[in-house]
Amino acid sequence: MNLVLLFPEDFIDEDGRVRLTGRRHQHILKIHKAKLGDELCVGFVNGKIGTGRIVMLDHQSVDLEVELTQAPPSPIPLTLILALPRPQVIKRTLLCAASLGIKKIIFLNFFRVEKSFWQSSSLLEEAIQEPLVLGLEQAKDTGLPEVLLRKRFKIFVEDELPELTKGIVSLVAHPSALHACPVSVRQPVTLVIGPEGGLIDFELDKLTELGFQAIDLGPRILRVESVLPFIVGRMF
Amino acid sequence: MNLVLLFPEDFIDEDGRVRLTGRRHQHILKIHKAKLGDELCVGFVNGKIGTGRIVMLDHQSVDLEVELTQAPPSPIPLTLILALPRPQVIKRTLLCAASLGIKKIIFLNFFRVEKSFWQSSSLLEEAIQEPLVLGLEQAKDTGLPEVLLRKRFKIFVEDELPELTKGIVSLVAHPSALHACPVSVRQPVTLVIGPEGGLIDFELDKLTELGFQAIDLGPRILRVESVLPFIVGRMF
Repeated sequence: MNLVLLFPEDFIDEDGRVRLTGRRHQHILKIHKAKLGDELCVGFVNGKIGTGRIVMLDHQSVDLEVELTQAPPSPIPLTLILALPRPQVIKRTLLCAASLGIKKIIFLNFFRVEKSFWQSSSLLEEAIQEPLVLGLEQAKDTGLPEVLLRKRFKIFVEDELPELTKGIVSLVAHPSALHACPVSVRQPVTLVIGPEGGLIDFELDKLTELGFQAIDLGPRILRVESVLPFIVGRMF
Repeated sequence: MNLVLLFPEDFIDEDGRVRLTGRRHQHILKIHKAKLGDELCVGFVNGKIGTGRIVMLDHQSVDLEVELTQAPPSPIPLTLILALPRPQVIKRTLLCAASLGIKKIIFLNFFRVEKSFWQSSSLLEEAIQEPLVLGLEQAKDTGLPEVLLRKRFKIFVEDELPELTKGIVSLVAHPSALHACPVSVRQPVTLVIGPEGGLIDFELDKLTELGFQAIDLGPRILRVESVLPFIVGRMF
């Protein structure tokens, strides 16, 4: 944890004193091996970054006096629409996306997504928040990504997707597409990444109708936790 | 495993018949759920890619008739010099690097690398090969990366590094460096990534003397498994 992410409920007075228990307290104690008076990097969720000076520390909790002064890093202007991955990959994907600065993630159903994946406990609201927080703490960022679950491909594409593509570079990763992934786009991008088995023709056609361009990510098959930084490094 | 990587010792005759036991046999049986006559994507280590038709399958082993026709993907011309990471990260780093097509990886000692890391069993020769093979099988590649261990920073930098930087773009990742990571370099690069705590001045000076340019990878702190695809996506 390179930054301790703080939430409104952590504050115990109006002068910027927070009290942490549980995971963050344990981490500060055991990993940072922090002592009274030490300063830690902290950030307020969706807000500024600063320092937290330890003013009380015991085996139950830690109190920090917090000063928030700096803006967090700029968001990556990427809307990521991802075929729902296998349950054991969901958390890793969210952590990775959050650490990269992606702020909007939509898990979408495709024909080749196994229906049972939607039952995963990793999709419960609290389970989704946990890896996002870990990703922000890793990256020293504060902006919590928005995560949407969309179980109906056709309804999503017809009703919501047009709004997400209007005047925006819209790309769909597709093996052996004619175009390579663009470099240094540096403007808002909406990117669709399909399931392991690929998109079916109907799905690709629906996206193409909306103006999506198919792009090839190279000859190697990468895991989703590698694909995301590959794309962010390349386009932003 | 998107490709079954084959080694010389797998071949049981001169007509291209291989016999697999152990991990690959189990994977073909249980994950691929393959049957007699099925064709799998296979590749010969450091050689070509093709298909393997299942001609025998039981609970002990599987025999494939192999035809190798295609060249593997082009290597990424990156020599990666990495501060030895924590033991639990070594395997993930090697798997990730191999899947990206990086073919030369040097684990180097730095002042801020904990000495105990060099005792890790993940650095034994067989332990190093395992994640490399998994990375190639993931990516559908065959070229086994070379992995070197260098425990003496100064000796390595003075005796070996000049050869690896002659006429080659030489970069060292350094937070808050003046230059951003270059885009679309598409020529050989030697890249140094230091330890979690960063390089000390002596180390940075030694690299700068050799012509290394310090580059900044952005405001977010990424894990090494995210840094590698970020860099490969950006530069190649």
